Amino acid sequence: MSLRHWLPCLEWGRQYDRHAAAQDGLAALIVTMMLIPQSLAYAMLAGLPPVTGLYASILPLLAYALFGSSRTLAVGPVAVVSLMTAAALQSVAPAGSPEYVGAAMLLALLSGLILAAMAMLRLGFVANFLSHPVISGFISASGILIAFSQLKHILGIPAAGETMLQLVPAVLGHLQAVNWPTLIIGVSSLAFLWWTRSGLKPLLTRLGLGATLAGNLTKAGPVLAIILSILAVKGLHLEQAGVRVVGAIPQGLPGLMLPTMDLQLTLQLLPAALLISLVGFVESISVGQTLAAKRRQRIQPDSELLGLGTANIAAALSGGFPVTGGFSRSVVNYDAGAQTPLAGVLTAAGIAISVLLLTPLLHDLPQAVLAATIIVAVLSLVDLGALKHTWRYSRQDGIAQLATIAGVLLIGVETGVMLGVGLSLLLFLWRTSRPHMAVVGQLPGSEHFRNIDRFDVVESPEVLSLRVDESLYFPNARFLEERISELIANRPQIRHLVLMCPGVNLIDASALESLESIVERLHTAGVQLHLSEVKGPVMDQLKRSDFLQHFGGKVFVSQFEALRNLAPEVTRRTLQRQA
Amino acid sequence: MSLRHWLPCLEWGRQYDRHAAAQDGLAALIVTMMLIPQSLAYAMLAGLPPVTGLYASILPLLAYALFGSSRTLAVGPVAVVSLMTAAALQSVAPAGSPEYVGAAMLLALLSGLILAAMAMLRLGFVANFLSHPVISGFISASGILIAFSQLKHILGIPAAGETMLQLVPAVLGHLQAVNWPTLIIGVSSLAFLWWTRSGLKPLLTRLGLGATLAGNLTKAGPVLAIILSILAVKGLHLEQAGVRVVGAIPQGLPGLMLPTMDLQLTLQLLPAALLISLVGFVESISVGQTLAAKRRQRIQPDSELLGLGTANIAAALSGGFPVTGGFSRSVVNYDAGAQTPLAGVLTAAGIAISVLLLTPLLHDLPQAVLAATIIVAVLSLVDLGALKHTWRYSRQDGIAQLATIAGVLLIGVETGVMLGVGLSLLLFLWRTSRPHMAVVGQLPGSEHFRNIDRFDVVESPEVLSLRVDESLYFPNARFLEERISELIANRPQIRHLVLMCPGVNLIDASALESLESIVERLHTAGVQLHLSEVKGPVMDQLKRSDFLQHFGGKVFVSQFEALRNLAPEVTRRTLQRQA
Repeated sequence: MSLRHWLPCLEWGRQYDRHAAAQDGLAALIVTMMLIPQSLAYAMLAGLPPVTGLYASILPLLAYALFGSSRTLAVGPVAVVSLMTAAALQSVAPAGSPEYVGAAMLLALLSGLILAAMAMLRLGFVANFLSHPVISGFISASGILIAFSQLKHILGIPAAGETMLQLVPAVLGHLQAVNWPTLIIGVSSLAFLWWTRSGLKPLLTRLGLGATLAGNLTKAGPVLAIILSILAVKGLHLEQAGVRVVGAIPQGLPGLMLPTMDLQLTLQLLPAALLISLVGFVESISVGQTLAAKRRQRIQPDSELLGLGTANIAAALSGGFPVTGGFSRSVVNYDAGAQTPLAGVLTAAGIAISVLLLTPLLHDLPQAVLAATIIVAVLSLVDLGALKHTWRYSRQDGIAQLATIAGVLLIGVETGVMLGVGLSLLLFLWRTSRPHMAVVGQLPGSEHFRNIDRFDVVESPEVLSLRVDESLYFPNARFLEERISELIANRPQIRHLVLMCPGVNLIDASALESLESIVERLHTAGVQLHLSEVKGPVMDQLKRSDFLQHFGGKVFVSQFEALRNLAPEVTRRTLQRQA
Repeated sequence: MSLRHWLPCLEWGRQYDRHAAAQDGLAALIVTMMLIPQSLAYAMLAGLPPVTGLYASILPLLAYALFGSSRTLAVGPVAVVSLMTAAALQSVAPAGSPEYVGAAMLLALLSGLILAAMAMLRLGFVANFLSHPVISGFISASGILIAFSQLKHILGIPAAGETMLQLVPAVLGHLQAVNWPTLIIGVSSLAFLWWTRSGLKPLLTRLGLGATLAGNLTKAGPVLAIILSILAVKGLHLEQAGVRVVGAIPQGLPGLMLPTMDLQLTLQLLPAALLISLVGFVESISVGQTLAAKRRQRIQPDSELLGLGTANIAAALSGGFPVTGGFSRSVVNYDAGAQTPLAGVLTAAGIAISVLLLTPLLHDLPQAVLAATIIVAVLSLVDLGALKHTWRYSRQDGIAQLATIAGVLLIGVETGVMLGVGLSLLLFLWRTSRPHMAVVGQLPGSEHFRNIDRFDVVESPEVLSLRVDESLYFPNARFLEERISELIANRPQIRHLVLMCPGVNLIDASALESLESIVERLHTAGVQLHLSEVKGPVMDQLKRSDFLQHFGGKVFVSQFEALRNLAPEVTRRTLQRQA
């Protein structure tokens, strides 16, 4: 049981057949074609030599296939995590230097260990604290930031920076130094890639191809752009014209080695590793859950943590950098018919063969084409409409999302996310600290009680019914005291106060203390407190104090019961009245 | 209106008469007698010259009388705030030095400005984040810490330290250097003060005095101890025997001056000032509310903030240190019959006269007697039984309380409080991140629905009713998805899922997203989602999204309505069955 829990491959491995193998093989071929340019591009985004992107697409895929629970998730370097890697490493060493590469491996190792530890401690729920608006804002803002950071490759100018405040002046300041051949390659790649995304598939289907085949061929667009641009650079000697190319890529598989361990550096990278782990996990599990649900499969958060954790450890040991499940890549894998994680194993094999054979051919690949690949990929993630949407639904969520976007764009990736998470929590606490309460009355002709401000209901002159729409706990305990003092002060004829508690999911020690002083103050005013519709768990907890023995009132199963006891005449008449 | 809101004295001043004046005068006399030794003692506790305690008991009382809303609160130096002052200033300058005194004034100024700003911004609710268990644990632990820190004065030894880890070895290490005359004075003062608290009042009433008079005379115990000990020191020349005395106290009223402003020092003291403000406000408002309720009066949190804020600013301008409303002092003021804040004004006058006339007489007052006053006062605040009580009621509150106590005793006063507050919030968030949910069924013979695990209820085979006992927001949004997947997976015959929402006080954007993916996944499984008992505010918010238009289900006013629509037969039979 336990071994099968941690090794989901034992499950699907038993039923593996030739049909699944054929489908997995096809999916692997398509994903490999997609992954080669992406790996090179995301390594460049992370400030690393392009070959490390390929390294990060071999062993991690094998590790995930062994331990991960999603059947179709495609693991490897992704845009957002690569951006976070670059942000974490910027102050460690110059981009591309051996120290920088070593630190990237260490970052992957730390991230892997954190994810594996979370799996063992079943701490997957921690990722839930990244709320949907924060994630959505983070991804949109990262997309803008990444796209902007790649402009320098399209323009052929130097322009470094980690935030928009640095990037925009850097790009504007170098505009006069634009390299025209680079710009032409960059813009035409952008246009071509954009067209393959939007125009190619309809064209192919109109030419009579099946929708699936057309879709798969479309995914090969970046490969075509790569081939064409390499031929152009070679044929027109564009490297001499100032077009920057990928250059010599070391041939052969990566050696296995531990990253250099350095306590100081480890401590410095730890916060970034934690955030990369959480963000990577959230991105991965969102894709995984969506795809699993389509085929009525389920994924285990613990297995996902372990799968991603081992994938990152594998990346660290083989010269890579932090990886996670990629969105577009996984969708392609799913659409291409992948049945099991063996598709990932075959993809890894495809990348390994490419590293062995193809790297010399990539020497003349212009960096502008890789940048165009990144820009097209990340701009599709930008969804600023979501902000309007969120804002309309909830002001608080909107503020958190806006703060995340502004933080990521203007201060930095990590700060932006933490700002969003912190603000989400603070706004929630602030909200619960002043809970909604409603004085309720009986709906004529029914046993239901509703807000007197919203419905035409009947109140008993001697019984005040107050519904509390929040758990009672320390931030709002005193608020309840004040509200009740106010209500009682304005209604001198009241003899009973019934606190209707269907929305009270917790009464903590502070609130219990408040209830006790409420009871005492009500007694001096000649009013008795009662409770109604108290939930089982709350009742259990109240029984662990002596409140129920000495508060002097009753606990009614429903508000109707309460009123039937305390004001039988009014209740009976209201029940018989037509609504 | 606005002026009357901020100057409550305009209210009571209009009806002031001779009767009230007589009662206020008597109360002022008793409180003055109590306040003189307390002021000297708490100044000593704060590491300040004794006279600063008297200074802090003049102008601040006038300021509070003008702006505060409690009729009977007695403001001045209190034990816990004095301890926090000492903790905040320990690293600034040597205790008692002019820099130290200046820093104490600056601390009072900062605290006053913070409180006044909170009043203007109506931020009084922030103090609610100090939960009852945290406050209670903090006060008990401070009491122990303060009592222990005063042992050195009783024993006549040097023993400095801010935590038990420093104090215990310091006291034990100097035990061989005990000054016997000091110890005899200290122990006999302790015994005498303890006896006046417990034995004197019954004795006086047995001698035929009225209960009130006996009670008031009892409060003069510390004054009697002071007089007797001064006579003993003078008559027996104990100062030469090594008994440390208060020494020369400058005569005359304090001059008005601004504390030295220093940006660096201000920034250093700011966190402590914030915490002192919050703790002082909570202590003060608790006493104020309790006493106001006894006479059916009300206090305004905003006025309290402004009253305490101006009191602290006044303390800063007149050579004092942070003050707040004291518990025992206010109770004495109330019991002695104080009617209005004019009692405070008269108390201030009493202290001012004492500073002018009595200070030379206090030269020979032994520090051991002041220490005994402090120890007896603070030990009455220690209530470790509360911990057992809290622990039994709620494990989470118990953990927060224990952490506060341990933090205050072992790490420091500020750290302890912040540990408690942080832990309270984290435990609450953790709790709401895995909410209680119950599958419910109909109670036979009624329209009520209850947990199937607790009650003998009837379920419809095709309709699953799930009650969610928590607001749906980002930390638990995914949890709901998983719980529903699980429930549906185990019940293949289910066609409808009704989410019963009486306990749902909020559905945030993340939870809305989760609901949408739940609806989608349920649809693929042939199950329709419905909602029931959704509250008005939640419904209003849902209407701001398009969820209600496209989720395909209905929103029922009650769970009974839902079942009557979805499974009419089962519901009708259950309603007719005997419970």
